[in-house]
Amino acid sequence: MTGTEQDDLGLFTDLYQLTMLDAYLNEDMHEEAVFTLFVRRLPDNRKFLLAAGLDPLLELLENLSFSEKQFDYLADQGFSDQLINYLREFEFSGQVRALPEGTVFFENEPMVEVRAPLPQAQLIETLVMNQLHLQTLLASKAARIALAAGDKPILDFGARRVHGIDAGVKGSRAMLLGGIRATSNMLAGHHYSLPVAGTMAHSYIQAHDSEFDAFKRFTERFPDTILLVDTIDTIEGVKKVIKLAKQLGDEFKVKGIRLDSGDLGELAKQSRKLLDDNGLEHLDIVASGGLDEYKISELENNKAPIDSFGVGTGMGVSDDAPALDIAYKLVEYAGKGRLKLSSGKPVLPGEKQVFRETKDGQFSQDTIARYDEQLPGHPLLQKVMTKGKRLPSHQRDFEKICEHAQQQLQQLPPSIRTIEKSDSYQVHISDRLSDYQQQVTEQVKKGGTS
Amino acid sequence: MTGTEQDDLGLFTDLYQLTMLDAYLNEDMHEEAVFTLFVRRLPDNRKFLLAAGLDPLLELLENLSFSEKQFDYLADQGFSDQLINYLREFEFSGQVRALPEGTVFFENEPMVEVRAPLPQAQLIETLVMNQLHLQTLLASKAARIALAAGDKPILDFGARRVHGIDAGVKGSRAMLLGGIRATSNMLAGHHYSLPVAGTMAHSYIQAHDSEFDAFKRFTERFPDTILLVDTIDTIEGVKKVIKLAKQLGDEFKVKGIRLDSGDLGELAKQSRKLLDDNGLEHLDIVASGGLDEYKISELENNKAPIDSFGVGTGMGVSDDAPALDIAYKLVEYAGKGRLKLSSGKPVLPGEKQVFRETKDGQFSQDTIARYDEQLPGHPLLQKVMTKGKRLPSHQRDFEKICEHAQQQLQQLPPSIRTIEKSDSYQVHISDRLSDYQQQVTEQVKKGGTS
Repeated sequence: MTGTEQDDLGLFTDLYQLTMLDAYLNEDMHEEAVFTLFVRRLPDNRKFLLAAGLDPLLELLENLSFSEKQFDYLADQGFSDQLINYLREFEFSGQVRALPEGTVFFENEPMVEVRAPLPQAQLIETLVMNQLHLQTLLASKAARIALAAGDKPILDFGARRVHGIDAGVKGSRAMLLGGIRATSNMLAGHHYSLPVAGTMAHSYIQAHDSEFDAFKRFTERFPDTILLVDTIDTIEGVKKVIKLAKQLGDEFKVKGIRLDSGDLGELAKQSRKLLDDNGLEHLDIVASGGLDEYKISELENNKAPIDSFGVGTGMGVSDDAPALDIAYKLVEYAGKGRLKLSSGKPVLPGEKQVFRETKDGQFSQDTIARYDEQLPGHPLLQKVMTKGKRLPSHQRDFEKICEHAQQQLQQLPPSIRTIEKSDSYQVHISDRLSDYQQQVTEQVKKGGTS
Repeated sequence: MTGTEQDDLGLFTDLYQLTMLDAYLNEDMHEEAVFTLFVRRLPDNRKFLLAAGLDPLLELLENLSFSEKQFDYLADQGFSDQLINYLREFEFSGQVRALPEGTVFFENEPMVEVRAPLPQAQLIETLVMNQLHLQTLLASKAARIALAAGDKPILDFGARRVHGIDAGVKGSRAMLLGGIRATSNMLAGHHYSLPVAGTMAHSYIQAHDSEFDAFKRFTERFPDTILLVDTIDTIEGVKKVIKLAKQLGDEFKVKGIRLDSGDLGELAKQSRKLLDDNGLEHLDIVASGGLDEYKISELENNKAPIDSFGVGTGMGVSDDAPALDIAYKLVEYAGKGRLKLSSGKPVLPGEKQVFRETKDGQFSQDTIARYDEQLPGHPLLQKVMTKGKRLPSHQRDFEKICEHAQQQLQQLPPSIRTIEKSDSYQVHISDRLSDYQQQVTEQVKKGGTS
């Protein structure tokens, strides 16, 4: 089991969703609910997030179901026949409004709003949060890394340390959405038709008694490869590439070398000089090993002659911010606005819209408003699913999603796009939404005293 | 797609594993290789690790295969018929020696050693690392949290923010292995027969117009539940539980309350007093919301009257150390020891064994040795798989694995078991292994100059 088969994913939920659902059925509480998914506070090292994971999530929702074995399990756990029969017939029939994938967003802004009968909207909470959290987290981290590298390609080498198979596959998609050029993960490459990259590891060199022989044999099978030069001694490794180039003459098609340890900036400079001095100006230098946006930025500032970067763990687990304070909160039930007053965890009630204003081609400020307001700027949330089916207008084409993400990132003000410390982006709450929040708060307080 | 179906997992590999494999086949390099999996350096906030994930991994290895669509994909990617035919017949036939799950270990100690024909051992690298990394990471984090809570139960509430479905399911197993009492994740509970826990969320309260009605209706369906009291005002919430107790009299079966926001220590004290003053001494207090081993330790030091802790994100993503510096390195091929000399990344060549000495019932020191040495102490690595099949002696029973983990943790010296800063555990390298490393290093340097 790696993430279970798709038709069993109904049970990817917290026990309390099922107990609440059982109680809702018992109380005949089937009226429509609206839940809002949003990030309460950005991590210290983030000034924006990049929405990701929507299309894979909607695909899961369209197919969400349970297996017979799972029903037996629920019966063993003491759940009612009423609940089990409900789940047997379960088909998600709700509406989803969402930020299109690749849209940048900020704290407290609704990323997704689900409108569905209360038991349905409740049941899917865990899955919705889990999937959008993972993919938004990794797309956002990847965007920072891609921005730090400017025009230089980033390759995702994270499959070995990303948290599990699902994170490996969907994470690679999310990272490409964030601006990464290719992934080493073949399962992700196949499943999502992503560009893949990779050539050789140290083990290949190690398995040969001579590094030079290893280079030579590998290029016989893959002439236009990237040779890994740091298995024994980096500079000596580069010299062997030069020796091979001389030996092969016109047959030498190698495209570059990879450095994976040591002082990457200094080794890149020495390697570049050696290559150039020997007529190999056209060979690229790929650097990898413990890289992230901060290290890449430092290498770029020092003008290290590196042509592309392989980034693994730091990106794949979003190591400086491995989780987002994401929440999925009830904001309306049976036509009435809802919120909770738990300290430090404010909720904006009701269905909402976000209006984004642009000035001189750059985003200038956002306003979170009630869903039916008309405010200056561009409304961000779009209807993407009704009656449990994705709408034709919903963007599924991954290339277009990636283009949208790049356009969004280009429109971020430089102070938000940078990885340096700076001001945060301005997000307002509209007067009407603010009034409504006040009004619902009063109602809830009354419910707390009755 | 959530992690793909099991029979497609052969393709969960990095592209370079396949290019190397293609080259190995081209060069007829089928002799036996040994790869060692180990953690190079412990994260700053870890003084030990808890081995986890072995049995789920071995199950995957027994069943590893590819789908026809994947072969088409590989052909499209330019892979040779020779490679594709090899994968079509692929069946892992290697030997695995490993630390039993639940064994504590330290940096540089082999956790797993795989002996198999080189192409096989190479192909599985990405999967082996990914799976053991995830599960060891989360079991180790969970062990710290469980130790900080002493005898008080910890509940895993992390499903919503753990990185994807696979991490959610296998992670819950790993966290229970680390000492957590139960999980909220129903898919994990079902798949691995784990104890599950959970009652109600804020949304249930919010969906009712009155908090008191919500409590009352929920207890009609689930009389012996835990009521969540912080949706509106924590202390007022507790008072409503008391009101309900008075109203229901002998029918009141509620087992406890849950606090999920605010100053948990202070609110627990006030709640405890209110409950006790009203004859509800038997109600437990569960605390949750942003907890980890540091916060639990602080609450325990302040004698907060909390009976159990729900821990989510901090544990589920191992937030203070979201990745381990885990490596899977070629250490032997065709009967010869192998290593690489890349700076800062030392490798111990050849098959190895770890001997652990115990003094007064506590682990005192470990020695990493060659596999055939006989040294004082208990040898830790056991043969768990031969010819690609799990051995009958390999422990699959999850309860026994958990017992072993608890015994191991109890035998850790207090200075290693604590979450405070202190010395690290002593790990030596045997003289014979040290000599062998020297000898292989010389050989490899020769290979670097030839």
